[in-house]
Amino acid sequence: MRVLILGGNGFLGSHLVDALLARGDTVDVVGRAPTLFNPDLIQPPHALVKYYQVNFVDTNALKPLLEQADVIYHLVSTMIPATSNQYPVVDIQENLISTVKILEILRYLPPKRFIYFSSGGTVYGTPQHIPIAENHPLDPKSSYGIVKVAIEKYLHMYGELYGVSSVVLRLANPYGPRQMKIGVQGVVATVLMSILQDKPITIWGDGKVIRDYIYIEDVVRLLLLVTDSQAVGTFNVGSGVGHSLLDILATAQQITEKTPQVNYLPSRNFDIPAVVLDVAHVSETFDWRPEISLTQGMSKHWQWLQQIEQR
Amino acid sequence: MRVLILGGNGFLGSHLVDALLARGDTVDVVGRAPTLFNPDLIQPPHALVKYYQVNFVDTNALKPLLEQADVIYHLVSTMIPATSNQYPVVDIQENLISTVKILEILRYLPPKRFIYFSSGGTVYGTPQHIPIAENHPLDPKSSYGIVKVAIEKYLHMYGELYGVSSVVLRLANPYGPRQMKIGVQGVVATVLMSILQDKPITIWGDGKVIRDYIYIEDVVRLLLLVTDSQAVGTFNVGSGVGHSLLDILATAQQITEKTPQVNYLPSRNFDIPAVVLDVAHVSETFDWRPEISLTQGMSKHWQWLQQIEQR
Repeated sequence: MRVLILGGNGFLGSHLVDALLARGDTVDVVGRAPTLFNPDLIQPPHALVKYYQVNFVDTNALKPLLEQADVIYHLVSTMIPATSNQYPVVDIQENLISTVKILEILRYLPPKRFIYFSSGGTVYGTPQHIPIAENHPLDPKSSYGIVKVAIEKYLHMYGELYGVSSVVLRLANPYGPRQMKIGVQGVVATVLMSILQDKPITIWGDGKVIRDYIYIEDVVRLLLLVTDSQAVGTFNVGSGVGHSLLDILATAQQITEKTPQVNYLPSRNFDIPAVVLDVAHVSETFDWRPEISLTQGMSKHWQWLQQIEQR
Repeated sequence: MRVLILGGNGFLGSHLVDALLARGDTVDVVGRAPTLFNPDLIQPPHALVKYYQVNFVDTNALKPLLEQADVIYHLVSTMIPATSNQYPVVDIQENLISTVKILEILRYLPPKRFIYFSSGGTVYGTPQHIPIAENHPLDPKSSYGIVKVAIEKYLHMYGELYGVSSVVLRLANPYGPRQMKIGVQGVVATVLMSILQDKPITIWGDGKVIRDYIYIEDVVRLLLLVTDSQAVGTFNVGSGVGHSLLDILATAQQITEKTPQVNYLPSRNFDIPAVVLDVAHVSETFDWRPEISLTQGMSKHWQWLQQIEQR
C-alpha cells in the first residue's frame, strides 16, 4: 500500500510515517521544510519512504503524488487559531483553496482513501454541552475553525456529487514526544519543557480551561485502523476525558517532582472554556479505545524530553 | 441616512434603491456593470443616488464608500449554484475572500448596520423537515451554499470578536418585475417570459421540486424595516409557503390563459427536493408578514412583463 502524507514532517505526521513504515507500507511525505524534525535522531533513513519538499499551496506539484497514492492523509494547516485571526484572507487562500484544488484533482482520479484532519477544539465553538458529539452545531470562533468547517463541507459535497469519499477526523489535543520541537502547539509539551528548562510558563486565563488531551500513541494506533478500514464519515478523535490546565500543571508537578512557575495573563477572546469530545462513534466504527491516561502519557513524554536533553 | 448597496444594480438591489430613494435616503450603489437594468426606464435619475462602477473584488476601491455609509447592504454574488460547482476556487476567491476583506475594513471603522444576503435555498442542504427554522443544521450541497455558510460564520466571528454586528438574511426565492431582464435566476420570471414569447420552458426533474417563492414587494418592505431596526442576527426570509414547479406552471396558465410548453430534463445532482422556510423569527423581530400570494404576485409580474413588451 502506498500512503501519501501531506504535512508528514510535523509532530503527528512524523509518528504516522514511522508507524506505517514499521508495518511495511510505502510512504510519500510532503512537507514545506526538508527536516522540521531531526530525521537522524528519530527517523532512520528507510527504503520505503520518500520525502518531497513541496509547498502545499503548489497543488500542481502534488498531482503525480496524488495519482500514485492508495491512501492520502491531509494533515496540513499553515495556521494556528491565533494566527488565522490575524490573517484570515491568507488562511482561506492557503488552506481552503489549496484543499479544494486537491479535491478538483481527486475528482478525476480513481477512488482513493482520503483522510482529513479537522479540529475538535475549534469547529464546535463554545459547546452547548460536553461531551460534544459529531452532530453538535458547528459554530467556530476563529478563522482556523471556519476554514476547517468549510473544508469539511467541500469534502462532503465532493463525496455526494463526485464520489470522492473521505474520512474527517476532528482531533482533540494530541500530545507526546517530538512536540515543542516541531511547531508551536501543545500545552503538555510546553509545560514539561518549561519545567525541564526551569523557565516560567505563560497561561492565558485562570487555568480552568478544559481540553481533551490524547496521547500520540493512541492517535497513531487509530490511524492505522482508519487506513485499513473502508469506513467513511466524520469522527471525533479524543480521549473523551476533560482536563483543566491546572490538572496538567498538577500532573506535571507530580511526575517531575518540580513546581512549575506560572505567569497568568488575561484570557484571549477566541479561547473556549471547555472542549471534551464524545468518542463513541469512532470507538464503535474502528473498534478502538484510548488506552493511555494523562499521567501515563505525560510520564512517557517527560522520559523522552529528558533523553533528548541528555544528548 | 446614507445607505451603501453592494450589488445594487441587480433585481433585488434595484428595487431596494427605489424604495430607499422614495423615502428620502441617500443611496450609493455599487455594481459591476453601469446599467445592468435600463435606468431610464425604471429608475429616473435622482439627486439622492450615486452609481459606482466597481468590481466587488476590488475592496480597496470600496473603502471610502464603506467609510461614509451608515447602513451597508451586501447583495453581491458573482456565482449561482450551478456555476459555483464548476468554479469553486473562483467562488471562494471572489465571494468569500472579498467579503472577509470588507469585514477587515469594517473592523477599524465606527459601528455600522451591515446586512448580508445569504441563501435560504442552499445553506440548509436537503432539509430534515419543512418548514426549516434557522437552527436547522447547515449542510450545503453546492460551493455557492458552502461559501454563504462560511461568510455567515465570519460575520458571526467579527461580531463576537470585534463588535462588527450584522444581519444575515437567508432569502428564499424572490420574484417579480425586472427579473429575467437582470441575471439568470428566477423560475417564475422564466416561466412567464417563456409564455409571453411563446417559447418552450426547460425544467430539470419532474416539476415536483418545492420552493418558497416570495414577491419582491414583500421583501423590500421588510428591508426597510431591517434598515431602521437595531436588531441583529440570522433570519429566514420567505413566504413560509411551499409551491412546486407544477404549481407555478398551473398558476401561470390560469393567469395568462395560455398553456406553457415544457421540456423536462433529468434533475441535477445539486437540486434539493423541497425548501420551505420557517419565517417566525423574522416576523416577530420586525413585525412583518408576507402579504402577497403567489397568484397575486405572478399576476403583477405578468402585467409588468406585458407593459415592457409593448414599449
